[in-house]
Amino acid sequence: MSHNSFGHLFRVTTFGESHGPAIGCVVDGTPPGLALDEAALQRDLDRRRPGQSRHTTQRREPDAARILSGVFEGRTTGTPIAVLIENTDQRSKDYSEIAAKYRPGHADYTYDAKYGLRDYRGGGRSSARETATRVAAGAIARAVLGPAVIVRAALVQVGGDRLEVPREAWDWDEVGRNPFFCPDAATAARWGDLMDAVRKAGSSVGAVVQVEAEGVPPGWGAPLYGKLDQDLCAALMSINAVKGVEIGAGFAAAALSGEDNADEMRPGPDGGPPVFTNNHAGGILGGISTGQTVVARMAVKPTSSILTPRRTVTRDGAASEIVTKGRHDPCVGIRAVPVAEAMMACVLADHKLRHRGQCGADGGEAPP
Amino acid sequence: MSHNSFGHLFRVTTFGESHGPAIGCVVDGTPPGLALDEAALQRDLDRRRPGQSRHTTQRREPDAARILSGVFEGRTTGTPIAVLIENTDQRSKDYSEIAAKYRPGHADYTYDAKYGLRDYRGGGRSSARETATRVAAGAIARAVLGPAVIVRAALVQVGGDRLEVPREAWDWDEVGRNPFFCPDAATAARWGDLMDAVRKAGSSVGAVVQVEAEGVPPGWGAPLYGKLDQDLCAALMSINAVKGVEIGAGFAAAALSGEDNADEMRPGPDGGPPVFTNNHAGGILGGISTGQTVVARMAVKPTSSILTPRRTVTRDGAASEIVTKGRHDPCVGIRAVPVAEAMMACVLADHKLRHRGQCGADGGEAPP
Amino acid sequence: MSHNSFGHLFRVTTFGESHGPAIGCVVDGTPPGLALDEAALQRDLDRRRPGQSRHTTQRREPDAARILSGVFEGRTTGTPIAVLIENTDQRSKDYSEIAAKYRPGHADYTYDAKYGLRDYRGGGRSSARETATRVAAGAIARAVLGPAVIVRAALVQVGGDRLEVPREAWDWDEVGRNPFFCPDAATAARWGDLMDAVRKAGSSVGAVVQVEAEGVPPGWGAPLYGKLDQDLCAALMSINAVKGVEIGAGFAAAALSGEDNADEMRPGPDGGPPVFTNNHAGGILGGISTGQTVVARMAVKPTSSILTPRRTVTRDGAASEIVTKGRHDPCVGIRAVPVAEAMMACVLADHKLRHRGQCGADGGEAPP
Amino acid sequence: MSHNSFGHLFRVTTFGESHGPAIGCVVDGTPPGLALDEAALQRDLDRRRPGQSRHTTQRREPDAARILSGVFEGRTTGTPIAVLIENTDQRSKDYSEIAAKYRPGHADYTYDAKYGLRDYRGGGRSSARETATRVAAGAIARAVLGPAVIVRAALVQVGGDRLEVPREAWDWDEVGRNPFFCPDAATAARWGDLMDAVRKAGSSVGAVVQVEAEGVPPGWGAPLYGKLDQDLCAALMSINAVKGVEIGAGFAAAALSGEDNADEMRPGPDGGPPVFTNNHAGGILGGISTGQTVVARMAVKPTSSILTPRRTVTRDGAASEIVTKGRHDPCVGIRAVPVAEAMMACVLADHKLRHRGQCGADGGEAPP
Repeated sequence: MSHNSFGHLFRVTTFGESHGPAIGCVVDGTPPGLALDEAALQRDLDRRRPGQSRHTTQRREPDAARILSGVFEGRTTGTPIAVLIENTDQRSKDYSEIAAKYRPGHADYTYDAKYGLRDYRGGGRSSARETATRVAAGAIARAVLGPAVIVRAALVQVGGDRLEVPREAWDWDEVGRNPFFCPDAATAARWGDLMDAVRKAGSSVGAVVQVEAEGVPPGWGAPLYGKLDQDLCAALMSINAVKGVEIGAGFAAAALSGEDNADEMRPGPDGGPPVFTNNHAGGILGGISTGQTVVARMAVKPTSSILTPRRTVTRDGAASEIVTKGRHDPCVGIRAVPVAEAMMACVLADHKLRHRGQCGADGGEAPP
Repeated sequence: MSHNSFGHLFRVTTFGESHGPAIGCVVDGTPPGLALDEAALQRDLDRRRPGQSRHTTQRREPDAARILSGVFEGRTTGTPIAVLIENTDQRSKDYSEIAAKYRPGHADYTYDAKYGLRDYRGGGRSSARETATRVAAGAIARAVLGPAVIVRAALVQVGGDRLEVPREAWDWDEVGRNPFFCPDAATAARWGDLMDAVRKAGSSVGAVVQVEAEGVPPGWGAPLYGKLDQDLCAALMSINAVKGVEIGAGFAAAALSGEDNADEMRPGPDGGPPVFTNNHAGGILGGISTGQTVVARMAVKPTSSILTPRRTVTRDGAASEIVTKGRHDPCVGIRAVPVAEAMMACVLADHKLRHRGQCGADGGEAPP
Repeated sequence: MSHNSFGHLFRVTTFGESHGPAIGCVVDGTPPGLALDEAALQRDLDRRRPGQSRHTTQRREPDAARILSGVFEGRTTGTPIAVLIENTDQRSKDYSEIAAKYRPGHADYTYDAKYGLRDYRGGGRSSARETATRVAAGAIARAVLGPAVIVRAALVQVGGDRLEVPREAWDWDEVGRNPFFCPDAATAARWGDLMDAVRKAGSSVGAVVQVEAEGVPPGWGAPLYGKLDQDLCAALMSINAVKGVEIGAGFAAAALSGEDNADEMRPGPDGGPPVFTNNHAGGILGGISTGQTVVARMAVKPTSSILTPRRTVTRDGAASEIVTKGRHDPCVGIRAVPVAEAMMACVLADHKLRHRGQCGADGGEAPP
Repeated sequence: MSHNSFGHLFRVTTFGESHGPAIGCVVDGTPPGLALDEAALQRDLDRRRPGQSRHTTQRREPDAARILSGVFEGRTTGTPIAVLIENTDQRSKDYSEIAAKYRPGHADYTYDAKYGLRDYRGGGRSSARETATRVAAGAIARAVLGPAVIVRAALVQVGGDRLEVPREAWDWDEVGRNPFFCPDAATAARWGDLMDAVRKAGSSVGAVVQVEAEGVPPGWGAPLYGKLDQDLCAALMSINAVKGVEIGAGFAAAALSGEDNADEMRPGPDGGPPVFTNNHAGGILGGISTGQTVVARMAVKPTSSILTPRRTVTRDGAASEIVTKGRHDPCVGIRAVPVAEAMMACVLADHKLRHRGQCGADGGEAPP
């Protein structure tokens, strides 16, 4: 048990505070012989990096990932891969207000309640900065999954404004072109206006992220407490500010009839595995992948750090007010998109190895 | 790692198939000296038991729980508590159709894909029957939590019909009186009509369950991958047919502004801990309990077993059709209510012990 | 984490007290499709069963193992296998002395110190009776290992009397013929005389068990904290009354020179894997199997329950004396032989699956 | 599960290769509020450091530990503590021989067999260099244990030459003064002569280390698979070159009678806890601490790297010979002394927290 680790056979441990010397992670269980270098990590890290549009925080951090172990001559060795990201943009500033008062919606109060003290500089361990290490781990997970499994995410709602383009009309290339990871250019433009208004008002908004995996073969996941959807939900819920997670039809399934919700099965082409007429299940039945696209969504709450004063209390329990100044994302959901991908990749990598461990590569096992 | 266990210091392992000789669980890590007997387990089991109204399956199983170990002279000893529930109502019937064909929405296909074989009798391990062992474990968890922490759940939506009574007007006594665990008698009556129509149509509907815990002190949960909300979501998502989970405002938070979503803090009465003006957070900030009521909701999909024929394939890949006969709950969400309570109780018991392990009873620690 | 579980991918959880209704285990992670039935478990259980010679306790327990789950039509399904062994020979007797006084060398005092109470009937959870469940789990582990891996153990020392027959002259068939699991008939006869004297004197003696596995391929085990020898030592040390464990040359290695201790390598026959000139390493280098026979030994202390009075204290701290009456093994090391086999089989089964999970069946992995 | 982690509530994950950029560890679960700084780590690291006498390798590495996270203003925060030790003395040298041939007694062959490739520079991950990170973790564990628990180790055998001074005549101050961690000056001098001869001969010898903990209260450890002795044995066996571990009387207990092995109990002074007349048990009964001194010993094999040529094979399976040149400890057991202390400290810290988690500070628990 470790409060700062997740996964079993592909196991990630992260460490570090927002304003300490460095953050990082140790990834244990990576199979040997996989091609891996720092550039692969950097590609994903750059997508999460702040300061890339006017819609995210203007903090500038190169987020340069350094591999300290576990890779030799460009290949993984099977030993733990440690990744270090130095903290470079730690502005020396006055933290006395945040040290003395609890910011509503932040972890300030609960860390103090639990531990009796906290590293208040920039939110310490509870800062979203830690998600950079998840993205690094996710890049390693992609190497484990190989090219056959594609994990990608998109933003599908900003504040109350939902993407209305149907799933089959999404343009995944567009996701890489606009600052919202939005699969539709027109919607992205609309969200740009919305965000400008939010920023001007000193306010913030929430968002919904959809993350998918194509190419997952049937059989990953394990009943009853190693379910693929269970682990996926836990992984997404562990991301800062996430308040809800759903698989496939999700909450909407509650309102469907059994007939409408059924994903009927048909013989697959060329004698291959069966196909499904629909995917309300989100690619998972009984906790095990069906071979369809795995689909999850997560709801991200509006950024708690806003310019409007909020009532709060001091560490000593006195009534007070607080305005969170500084450089904050008015919609943390945007930069959560590559983080959601990373978490899904990590969960899938873990289950790939777990399935192989228990069932061999193809499921089942010849009797001894 | 165990695919059939959950929790860390309070750890539950379940076993058993729907039509095998018995199902059961082993609960490890229960503190010693707690009063516990079979009657305490039976009270919760009886709430989940089938056949108690016309709205649930007419299968009759006494679900009598027998404690095999870990309790001596009415008190827990600190050793593992094994609970056994014999399967008594295993009708000898013809399983040849379910053996040969995949029921859409069930785990039949994925179990076969993963394991190469499956115990098809009554769904085997994937049957909701397993949740009886969770309820037994939950009763033990309640003993760990003690009377100060109250865990209870209610149904808040059946099909598309939501409970409209505001939370503060709920009648928890009513929850025990109607067959829907509904905190409002009028709504329960309406749902009764709705369910009659569903049953008559040979159809099924989904539901949404809300589960809450009062009396959780601040400080339970642990960043970053032992978050209370993360573990809670995983536990709820592991329940059969659950497709979505949310904490506090959940998905609705995405559409709120930062101002509206903020739970402001005020000095507590009599110099006690601070109070919050609202509870969008659902009692959890940064993965750690705030001292407010912990609030989660889960979406349950409509029962997959319906009387309307659905297209499917046989094990050999041939096109076919299937009608799931037999005694099934037309809304599995109803009997999921006590299961949701049990899972929340287990997660909280685990975190109570984990918090005490790392931080002592009160958080913090005197320096050595 | 579970105090009553061991293993990772092949994970065993045991429960039960000596004089409760039953003891048992849940084995999680068994690959699907393996042939398994109760007879396979019974074969190993019968070797551990008490009352089979005058040298072991005369308690009579059929130790009939019942499989409750995880096996369908004679094959494992991949779901947890629960095994139940009812306690039948619980003589109703007077436990007041053992309840009130601490037996030296027993866990009575430490259980009370830890838990504040204990199930004192027959030693409760600390009774060697629990090892029956390990033997059942070991039989399942053998199914996982298949016929290519042979795990077997022998007694090599009783009290101060060591087996002097060199390893290459052992007769494994003889192990099954004498009551000491001794690979030499003459030595067994000598030990019979020694044990008669010990029993007559109301005394007890210790023993040393050697356990071996042939057919383990190179590559099982994992640096640095999943080492095969580490897990093996932990598993053997968890057996009641074991006070020391060693691998290969063990403690004797400390006195060897580097030259003498070196297991030199030579090209294998027919271009096969290399062979070693010796096996001081006990088949493990760097925590990973070499392909040689895995060799471990464990020291078992003399039975603490003896007929000679020993000084002790009561629960209330008063000076007292105690004589442990009842039916006890004068040398618990004898019946520990099949238990040692079971523990080694479980550890190897776990590492077989773990190796396959991380490295595939053959080690290494094609780059993606 | 993680191959490179140990412990549960106090959990250590290590990473790094001998000749990579750095080695390090992440310690998760440290209680908050403990005084800790880099100097505390350095004190223990300096005791393990090479090049401090002519009897250890002349490699020079400052082994400067840098704390990257988890400590704020001189106190632990409860978040993971990452420690980084840069590798500075990586001589650029020719590794072609070690890359192409397997050194007998080393992990070269097994790493290749398992992973298909290995970082051969200086032994990579299998180098004893990794033990520096264990010592750093051990220093953090000491902070968790506080001043009431004293963990210390001594060398009690070098090659075939045992320390003959009885335990009660040991001089712990002398341990810090001679290069052998020997509690007797005369023996240390004798070992100095022995080691000079060994070094001159280009040979190596093994050793035995005794490690003890005073001040452990009764009640730490947990039956049946979280036994204190089991975890201790696993932790010591995980140290490079260790081939045997024993607790208390250990292997010698096998030759004792039940009467002689019994640690009788007497009323404690001033109504305090009972005292024992002896400590054959090594401070542990039934896997739980008794309150006596916890005593363990481990056997370290002779260094495999010797100047005498040994026969081996190449990666391609051809017959060859190898002489391990370079700077090696002729007795790795010497520098293993502080490592043994560190491992025992880590295990005890873990069990302190685990005991508190399950049983509260004092064992037992008031009924709810």
